Amino acid sequence: MTSAELFNQIKAKKSFLCIGLDTDIQKIPRQLLDTTDPIFAFNKEIIDATHDLAVAYKPNLAFYESLGVNGWNSLEKTVNYIRYNYPDLFIIADAKRGDIGNTSNLYARAFFDAMDFDAVTVAPYMGEDSVTPFFTYVGKWVILLALTSNKGADDFQYMTENNEKLFERVIKTSAKWGNEDNMMYVVGATRAEMLADIRKIIPNHFLLVPGVGAQGGSLEEVAKNGLNKQCGLLVNSSRQIIYAGKDEKFAEKAREAALEVRDEMAGLLEKYL
Amino acid sequence: MTSAELFNQIKAKKSFLCIGLDTDIQKIPRQLLDTTDPIFAFNKEIIDATHDLAVAYKPNLAFYESLGVNGWNSLEKTVNYIRYNYPDLFIIADAKRGDIGNTSNLYARAFFDAMDFDAVTVAPYMGEDSVTPFFTYVGKWVILLALTSNKGADDFQYMTENNEKLFERVIKTSAKWGNEDNMMYVVGATRAEMLADIRKIIPNHFLLVPGVGAQGGSLEEVAKNGLNKQCGLLVNSSRQIIYAGKDEKFAEKAREAALEVRDEMAGLLEKYL
Repeated sequence: MTSAELFNQIKAKKSFLCIGLDTDIQKIPRQLLDTTDPIFAFNKEIIDATHDLAVAYKPNLAFYESLGVNGWNSLEKTVNYIRYNYPDLFIIADAKRGDIGNTSNLYARAFFDAMDFDAVTVAPYMGEDSVTPFFTYVGKWVILLALTSNKGADDFQYMTENNEKLFERVIKTSAKWGNEDNMMYVVGATRAEMLADIRKIIPNHFLLVPGVGAQGGSLEEVAKNGLNKQCGLLVNSSRQIIYAGKDEKFAEKAREAALEVRDEMAGLLEKYL
Repeated sequence: MTSAELFNQIKAKKSFLCIGLDTDIQKIPRQLLDTTDPIFAFNKEIIDATHDLAVAYKPNLAFYESLGVNGWNSLEKTVNYIRYNYPDLFIIADAKRGDIGNTSNLYARAFFDAMDFDAVTVAPYMGEDSVTPFFTYVGKWVILLALTSNKGADDFQYMTENNEKLFERVIKTSAKWGNEDNMMYVVGATRAEMLADIRKIIPNHFLLVPGVGAQGGSLEEVAKNGLNKQCGLLVNSSRQIIYAGKDEKFAEKAREAALEVRDEMAGLLEKYL
């Protein structure tokens, strides 16, 4: 998918919402536990209930890996289900991978070939040859960690040399490895004040923004500082939407929660774009 | 496993060899392709042929994930096989994970609970709360990326503030999060000249050293600069050992290659310890 195609989706849906499928077997409604694949059953209902309000879904791999082979199976089924039923949606593997070149090649194969994800999140610590193998798949994306939403972001990401912070160097350096049609950046919503600075470095790239909702970031602040002329934002919400309800009406409740975010996004697109 | 128990293994076997199970379906002998699980069949023969010469095995997750559910299944079988047949061996998930706290918790569950790995490699970019959840499993280890063996290591790992490089800050800061019985560091053999400096910061921690062999690092240099009084080194070799032979005698050839490394290690332990 190109950035123009993604922007078309955003305009059509008046939404730049990414729904995080952080599906935890301990948090899904009890009645699903009797099905053969409770994780997939939950995801399917959430997706069916919200697909017209979101432009992207983002399963975080940890939730699936923690269940071993069964979890990996649920993940594959989820990706296939979205691709088959709602082919325009953008699917992100939140995997935070990254290894030496010949190994990153295999991660690319895992997410872009064995599964049909559109994008994978990658950690920048190992540098260029850990990132560029993903670009051999045309139309696919790397979403590189830049400034994350967690407390630990302060440990290393603000390290400074020649007036340049580590996350700024990551962005400046890596922007040369790819382009605006195969590279996005993770910038946490809890750091919304930094978005304006980051926009000066990369005015045109898409940013994936986690941390709105459960982690405390403000959507208005993110939009004000982060929107560009192609929207340029995917804002993720996970727990706030998928666990909005706890009983058999969980999908309906998820839709209500997603609708609320979508309506706010529609207003922000009108206001700032 | 404690560091003392690991050292006992090293003394008993006169070896600090870790064998990387980077098992690639495109590189294993053709006759294995007729078995129900060629990846596991290959690993099993390699392990049976080398278990008395190595103290650790390290499957790199990318190789398994690239095969989807089947790959994950081969991985689980491999870990179970080692644990059941050779319980003293140290098993490392070379996964380079790392995410916000509640998500790293799930990665810990994936590798230490759903599977019985002893250690997992972790990327440091997201800081403390991406690392410490792994410590809730007593006897298990984090192996944190410090200075990697690839070319891309130069992109960010040498960034300097107040005379301290990023990889040094990673080591100094993170050494306070854990201790010498739950934390190791990855230091590439292609950077052997840095090992002596790193030993000044963390004299007692174990280091996992990739890059000897196919990537060009020298074992003698690594030993001279990296050995401490508890050995303190696990040196990994993957392709050089597991693909030493290409036909039906591949396991025998792998044993010969491992024996050569082990004999060199026995000499180095005698010389420097």
